[in-house]
Amino acid sequence: MIETPYLLFLGDAPDQLAAKVAQGIRDWRPENAVGQFRLPECKATVGLTDMTLAEAKAAGAKTLVIGVANRGGVISQAWKEVLIQALAEGFDLASGLHNLLRNEPDLVMAAKANGRMLHDVRIPSVQYPIANGVKRTGKRMLAVGTDCSVGKMYTALAVDEEMRKRGMKSSFRATGQTGILITGDGVPLDAVIADFMAGSIEYLTPDNDPDHWDIIEGQGSLFHVSYSGVTLALIHGGQPDALVVCHEPTRPHMRGLPGYQLPTLEAVRDTALHLAQVANPACQVVGYAINTYSMAEDEALAYLKATEDRLGLPAVDPLRTGTAPLVDALAAL
Amino acid sequence: MIETPYLLFLGDAPDQLAAKVAQGIRDWRPENAVGQFRLPECKATVGLTDMTLAEAKAAGAKTLVIGVANRGGVISQAWKEVLIQALAEGFDLASGLHNLLRNEPDLVMAAKANGRMLHDVRIPSVQYPIANGVKRTGKRMLAVGTDCSVGKMYTALAVDEEMRKRGMKSSFRATGQTGILITGDGVPLDAVIADFMAGSIEYLTPDNDPDHWDIIEGQGSLFHVSYSGVTLALIHGGQPDALVVCHEPTRPHMRGLPGYQLPTLEAVRDTALHLAQVANPACQVVGYAINTYSMAEDEALAYLKATEDRLGLPAVDPLRTGTAPLVDALAAL
Repeated sequence: MIETPYLLFLGDAPDQLAAKVAQGIRDWRPENAVGQFRLPECKATVGLTDMTLAEAKAAGAKTLVIGVANRGGVISQAWKEVLIQALAEGFDLASGLHNLLRNEPDLVMAAKANGRMLHDVRIPSVQYPIANGVKRTGKRMLAVGTDCSVGKMYTALAVDEEMRKRGMKSSFRATGQTGILITGDGVPLDAVIADFMAGSIEYLTPDNDPDHWDIIEGQGSLFHVSYSGVTLALIHGGQPDALVVCHEPTRPHMRGLPGYQLPTLEAVRDTALHLAQVANPACQVVGYAINTYSMAEDEALAYLKATEDRLGLPAVDPLRTGTAPLVDALAAL
Repeated sequence: MIETPYLLFLGDAPDQLAAKVAQGIRDWRPENAVGQFRLPECKATVGLTDMTLAEAKAAGAKTLVIGVANRGGVISQAWKEVLIQALAEGFDLASGLHNLLRNEPDLVMAAKANGRMLHDVRIPSVQYPIANGVKRTGKRMLAVGTDCSVGKMYTALAVDEEMRKRGMKSSFRATGQTGILITGDGVPLDAVIADFMAGSIEYLTPDNDPDHWDIIEGQGSLFHVSYSGVTLALIHGGQPDALVVCHEPTRPHMRGLPGYQLPTLEAVRDTALHLAQVANPACQVVGYAINTYSMAEDEALAYLKATEDRLGLPAVDPLRTGTAPLVDALAAL
């Protein structure tokens, strides 16, 4: 559990895309961020007030979150000075970078000296159990995809937001590092030991009120040969009541696998549902979330319409058309 | 890679079942063991010559393999004395125990002092790659199961043995600790980090001669909610040309999951094949391996016959009837 609110460290981000994590926090949990901290060379902004460490501290910030992808995987000396100063001023640090805070001796020393925490959200901090498959109370939705990076996290965050707007009980459950930094909690599933994958998702989505929804961020795809095992662990550990199938229609092949075509929406629907019903026989596919970012408006709307007509269920772009039809379907379950 | 041949340490095994690992080595790779070492209290034997450490060393043994499950997960003082002496006499140690050799300071010290290796086969010793899904040369068979512990390792070892008897090129590829100790090599898949599961199986079964068979030990089951992700990683990382479906007909429910019924052979056949064809469109199910250990002879043979008639493919019990029909089918691919 990472303490909120955050000060978002944008560092020397060379462009807006490098600040994707900070932008995700700003978009989905604005209440989690009091401001942003930028080095002079920074070319990105997430539109929050620029603050010094002292100003952010005074505004209540508890954790400095590295909201930027660094270059070459190295934590630069320019960053180090700020990070060490932040620890001295009483901030915890949180990072989803590949190279870990805990592997930097100067940061470890400064954290110890000041009694602060270093959160490397790529690494599990919990000894997860082996899944027991026992049916849990409460309801769960899982986003499954035709491929990696087709908008599963975005879809889950948008469904969670729509549910909360309606006064429904809902929790977004993060299963990757960006989602964990956005919400301050979750399971970094891709870093969990094989035997404990499904158990980590049971742990993440425990018994809850009968009318509470866990909206679980998906990972990978049953049809992506590099990561499909992670996806199936999510399906069986999550024992979802509802699946939303996510897709990006313009992709030429599976991400990182030039020889592999994307599966059809029908194939993902049928395969994911069949496997999900092992853990929860009542599971249903409630709709489709299509990432139409690369399509013109009329083309996108036509694609959504054609998908609905063909598959007989709501098809939305969470960004372009919203998730209301999906939440209607979930609320009716 | 564990150096062979072994001296098999049976310790103070309270019964024959506790010496299962040693028995597996004796059954499947007798050439890997020069003898057995038993403490006075030992109630088990694998039928090899009892040897002192010095006798085994003289007979060429390189590694003392802990071929016994210990009580309560603790490496006892009685064991310790032998293990430390073995290190002093120039043996490496190999173990599949939950509590690791490397976590015992006295063993670590003795290994260091004598320049010997401690092999904990439950823990990966390699940084595996992420799977790339590229088609590899050579042929691969994977054992898939209706459940955990239905005889997948035994089936794979028996197919490998039959192939080698016929002069076919074949390698048993271990994916669990017993298999690794039997052959001296393999991937402890249940301990691999999620993102690298499929990649570890690609690593285990690399390009090979066009007429070479990798016979891959299966793990878990697509229908076992605790471990299904591991199974799917095997299916996609292994990109098998052939599947053999393994089953134990008398089991009342999924292992460790009282609320879960076993799937039918048809369900496993169809689901596993569908998913396997993502990585290898030419994959086929070639037959069924039924563990009829708990059935009388006539009942067992009737079950095999009925399975063949119903499913139209060979059904064998590797122990009772042999694997010849499966190997015939594989050779014909």
